[in-house]
Amino acid sequence: SIDAMATPAAGFTARDATAPVSPTGRVHRLDLHVQEVQREVAPGVRQQLWTFGGTAPGPVLRGRIGDTFEITLINDGSLDHGIDFHAGALAPDQPMRPINPGERLVYRFTATKAGIWMYHCSTMPMLHHIGNGMYGAVIIDPPGLAPVDREYVLVQSELYLGADSQPGDLATMQAEQPDAVVFNGYVAQYAHRPLPARAGDRIRFWVLNAGPNRTSAFHVVGGQFDTVYREGRWQLRPGDAGGAQVLDLVPAAGGFVETVLPEAGDYPFVSHVMVDAERGARGVVAVR
Amino acid sequence: SIDAMATPAAGFTARDATAPVSPTGRVHRLDLHVQEVQREVAPGVRQQLWTFGGTAPGPVLRGRIGDTFEITLINDGSLDHGIDFHAGALAPDQPMRPINPGERLVYRFTATKAGIWMYHCSTMPMLHHIGNGMYGAVIIDPPGLAPVDREYVLVQSELYLGADSQPGDLATMQAEQPDAVVFNGYVAQYAHRPLPARAGDRIRFWVLNAGPNRTSAFHVVGGQFDTVYREGRWQLRPGDAGGAQVLDLVPAAGGFVETVLPEAGDYPFVSHVMVDAERGARGVVAVR
Amino acid sequence: SIDAMATPAAGFTARDATAPVSPTGRVHRLDLHVQEVQREVAPGVRQQLWTFGGTAPGPVLRGRIGDTFEITLINDGSLDHGIDFHAGALAPDQPMRPINPGERLVYRFTATKAGIWMYHCSTMPMLHHIGNGMYGAVIIDPPGLAPVDREYVLVQSELYLGADSQPGDLATMQAEQPDAVVFNGYVAQYAHRPLPARAGDRIRFWVLNAGPNRTSAFHVVGGQFDTVYREGRWQLRPGDAGGAQVLDLVPAAGGFVETVLPEAGDYPFVSHVMVDAERGARGVVAVR
Ligand SMILES: [Cu+2]
Ligand SMILES: [Cu+2]
Ligand SMILES: [Cu+2]
Ligand SMILES: [Cu+2]
Ligand SMILES: [Cu+2]
Ligand SMILES: [Cu+2]
Ligand code: NA
Ligand code: NA
Ligand code: NA
Ligand code: NA
Ligand code: NA
Ligand code: NA
Ligand SMILES: [Zn+2]
Ligand SMILES: [Zn+2]
Ligand SMILES: [Zn+2]
Ligand SMILES: [Zn+2]
Ligand SMILES: [Zn+2]
Ligand SMILES: [Zn+2]
Ligand SMILES: [Zn+2]
Ligand SMILES: [Zn+2]
Ligand SMILES: [Zn+2]
Repeated sequence: SIDAMATPAAGFTARDATAPVSPTGRVHRLDLHVQEVQREVAPGVRQQLWTFGGTAPGPVLRGRIGDTFEITLINDGSLDHGIDFHAGALAPDQPMRPINPGERLVYRFTATKAGIWMYHCSTMPMLHHIGNGMYGAVIIDPPGLAPVDREYVLVQSELYLGADSQPGDLATMQAEQPDAVVFNGYVAQYAHRPLPARAGDRIRFWVLNAGPNRTSAFHVVGGQFDTVYREGRWQLRPGDAGGAQVLDLVPAAGGFVETVLPEAGDYPFVSHVMVDAERGARGVVAVR
Repeated sequence: SIDAMATPAAGFTARDATAPVSPTGRVHRLDLHVQEVQREVAPGVRQQLWTFGGTAPGPVLRGRIGDTFEITLINDGSLDHGIDFHAGALAPDQPMRPINPGERLVYRFTATKAGIWMYHCSTMPMLHHIGNGMYGAVIIDPPGLAPVDREYVLVQSELYLGADSQPGDLATMQAEQPDAVVFNGYVAQYAHRPLPARAGDRIRFWVLNAGPNRTSAFHVVGGQFDTVYREGRWQLRPGDAGGAQVLDLVPAAGGFVETVLPEAGDYPFVSHVMVDAERGARGVVAVR
Repeated sequence: SIDAMATPAAGFTARDATAPVSPTGRVHRLDLHVQEVQREVAPGVRQQLWTFGGTAPGPVLRGRIGDTFEITLINDGSLDHGIDFHAGALAPDQPMRPINPGERLVYRFTATKAGIWMYHCSTMPMLHHIGNGMYGAVIIDPPGLAPVDREYVLVQSELYLGADSQPGDLATMQAEQPDAVVFNGYVAQYAHRPLPARAGDRIRFWVLNAGPNRTSAFHVVGGQFDTVYREGRWQLRPGDAGGAQVLDLVPAAGGFVETVLPEAGDYPFVSHVMVDAERGARGVVAVR
């Protein structure tokens, strides 16, 4: 089982949470290799993850309204897998079909609506495939989105441990007994390797809840959100009198929040579903 | 227990999910008979359900702001039952009182606010009465609601099995261990009897989460919501740059979403709380 | 364990749910004593609670945008405790640090954004400190907030019982098995000591969900919300055509709703997560 307070090894490198910039050009081509890999998910705890591109979450894609994404999915694994991009609208039958090991397919969609959209494996049982690492985010910028000083992407998900170095356990997924809840795939990684910022920076957090099962209540300790964008809509803007303390996201929901952390210090962030914070859904923004 | 992947018998007929049209006239009178009935809730699984009108969910009622509903509740069952309509504002004492088997009462309310409103049995323990089938929806149209090509109503609820042909189990309701999560009362019925549509149709899904306990994250695979109306408010309209991938509904919350499914194909819909999708909260829109 | 239907002793006094008025003056100073106290949390059930000021929830604070709060936290307990006010933005390092028994600190913040903000103990494990009583609310009025006839504050939280007169049980908090869910710290207290109102009163309910773990679905039976303000934003106003039946709040979220209860009668309120209503998240507004 997982000790959510354990310290990673000295050489531990956290996943880079920096949001990618939108590529120039309007057609984005990507080979996405499904890989069944051994990964550490908490200090000293290894699992076989099913991944898009070798990491869970998979790569963060980004573009603008009108952009076309042409993804070549290549199944390098030993099981059937497929992919479902919420960022595009199309008939699922062909592009989302499971493919055999060794096969490939091309999934082409044009983004017509802004938001942060989930993608995930489309092979049944999806609970198992999402729960074992097959999820990621596509950001489609709202028109006129202002630049900020720092922009991070955090994908919340749950871990349900299997035996050492084996895939996650479907039975505990079905029983809703997660062993950990994490941002970007590793227990409390940003508590140990904080996200950097400077005092007075405007920071945007894109947050996607990949689930598979639990609601997220994203909160930054010491911060207040003056900007909230959720499931395609602005809820709060800096000129508004009100502020928000949480961004609530059911599984497959996403959005972003912005805050200005006023002075140097360590600002934790959590899912304020407190049992999940203690299971690993926590990190730190180190403001210097 | 329930096999959520089982196939119904050849003669299985799914509940018609088509939204009713608003009756003409401004006073809507209805006799609503409480009936304790045997029903199949999943392939080969029968339960005694407590129902409004013989089905769970009960009938979908519809009207406009200013309409009066005059419901005669007739208790044909063996237990006390009552009714609570969220669609109207009134003192609960008399209209929501439990009535004995063989009794009747008249519940009269005038709709003053738009939305999709839950109704349910008002007899304690409500967890048991709602959990065993006594729930339904009243739609009060927002003024100026545009016509669409297809309009469906989906009520999400949970099943907690009792013994064969007996009522649902209060203990598992209290322990929050559902045996299934369903749309319109039957495990995955629209996976087997898909909802029809044509390519390019604008489809409106009215969704009510009857609970009793779980949050819903309604999603259409391959679709994006360009319109979201939730708990009395428009969240997204087609001209907005943003889109939504889920409609999040706590128990007793409701709303509607709209999408245009662009091409022929089978578009699954789910609660993206993935364990619930696998428990039966899934169906298909068959676009031809 | 707790009998959620039990009747309190004749001398039982419910916590006053009336919202405080904003103090005049723009600097609010308060000594807040952490006290580990014996309290009844349900009829005949006593626990050792960890509290801010002797009660769980702690005192409701209130002010306006621009006001400064200067809180002196005094640890009269036997364990380390600290405090985190969501109502202010600042570096957590010093003001939120845990202090030893016998120590004190001054926590000074200026409110710049409106809303109902959680405060809670900042000492690890926060799950245990919040789950054992260390939470409360700060109301910062939105500019131009209209006066109403009645204004109540309800803080939802969970109870996880320890042994008689001992602190709450961390293991059941971690296992998410609450013994009760309550408004203002005591099982169903306002079912036994209803909140008073008069027919036609406009009533505002400020609601904060302290969690630590469960989502709230606040509903007033027989009422409809014509006003919804949630996490810093107006969702509905009285002139809108739509109405709301629930206010949904993940842990650490808050807002207010308004309703006019039209006639004399007893109007129950609940979390419509029905298992929680039956665990004690219920009360009554007695309209005379
Ligand atoms: Cu907090
Ligand atoms: Cu905090
Ligand atoms: Cu999906
Ligand atoms: Cu999907
Ligand atoms: Cu209700
Ligand atoms: Cu009700
Ligand atoms: Na983290
Ligand atoms: Na905070
Ligand atoms: Na279905
Ligand atoms: Na999709
Ligand atoms: Na109460
Ligand atoms: Na009601
Ligand atoms: Zn490869
Ligand atoms: Zn897969
Ligand atoms: Zn560390
Ligand atoms: Zn009859
Ligand atoms: Zn009943
Ligand atoms: Zn079938
Ligand atoms: Zn003292
Ligand atoms: Zn404490
Ligand atoms: Zn009583």
